[in-house]
Amino acid sequence: MSHPDPHDPLTPIEMQPIGVVRNGVTAAVDRGWGAVESRIVLRPDLAGALDGLETFSHALVLTWLHEAPPPPGLRRRPQGRAEFPELGILAQRARYRPNPIAVSAVSIVAVEPGALIVRGLDVIDGTPVLDLKPYIGPFDRVEAPRVPDWARRLYEEESYF
Amino acid sequence: MSHPDPHDPLTPIEMQPIGVVRNGVTAAVDRGWGAVESRIVLRPDLAGALDGLETFSHALVLTWLHEAPPPPGLRRRPQGRAEFPELGILAQRARYRPNPIAVSAVSIVAVEPGALIVRGLDVIDGTPVLDLKPYIGPFDRVEAPRVPDWARRLYEEESYF
Repeated sequence: MSHPDPHDPLTPIEMQPIGVVRNGVTAAVDRGWGAVESRIVLRPDLAGALDGLETFSHALVLTWLHEAPPPPGLRRRPQGRAEFPELGILAQRARYRPNPIAVSAVSIVAVEPGALIVRGLDVIDGTPVLDLKPYIGPFDRVEAPRVPDWARRLYEEESYF
Repeated sequence: MSHPDPHDPLTPIEMQPIGVVRNGVTAAVDRGWGAVESRIVLRPDLAGALDGLETFSHALVLTWLHEAPPPPGLRRRPQGRAEFPELGILAQRARYRPNPIAVSAVSIVAVEPGALIVRGLDVIDGTPVLDLKPYIGPFDRVEAPRVPDWARRLYEEESYF
């Protein structure tokens, strides 16, 4: 019989979602997320934990992509497209990842009792939420990030948001 | 006997860390992280998943703050300081959160076989890593985020990085 070693940094971690996304979106798509408005409904025992978030304009939403299939391997072409290079799954933003956690920077529309309303959250209805954080420039904003050509093409020219 | 319902979005989630942070830092501090260089050592079965990350200048590092104590309640004052307002724990960046996941935007120094070297990662040695993502402007960079005065003071004037 084996027991997990609490001092081993690779020991599995269990977490409980803090809420769920409600937005009526039933399928993940590759464009047009900017206009989607979502209601993040918090667990009732966490009411009050949002107080003050309305004084920020943006938030980071961490979600668990519960419908993402397991990674097909350690490498793939972004969106499976032949014109893009084959890359490690940690070098792209696809949902195929060892732990399918998404980080989304969204606009805060309103804070209501037990719920946060946001715009631009790129996940489907029913997605579990793991954490919410205020977006703060010195933490989250990189002034001039360098990205390779495939990423510029995919995310800037093709209207993901 | 109760069984978890796989369709309940609040069902607990288990994940395995993908690696661990090595940087020699033994205690969390509130300033000076910008100069810290860290080695993120990947699980051996994930070698190859980093390929291509070196073509980006920055990455998001998602970590599990394994030494964070449970939240003292649903509200607290940032850094426990009396001059700051009492706020919900999801309206601040403290490690006291229901799921103590940190999101850190870092500079990529190098990709080596099985390891990513970064600068500016604000977590201690031994912290489990949950995910790594390339930092991509349209996803991650908000042009002019609005923050309240306490956050500006705490994070811009007091040299967190």
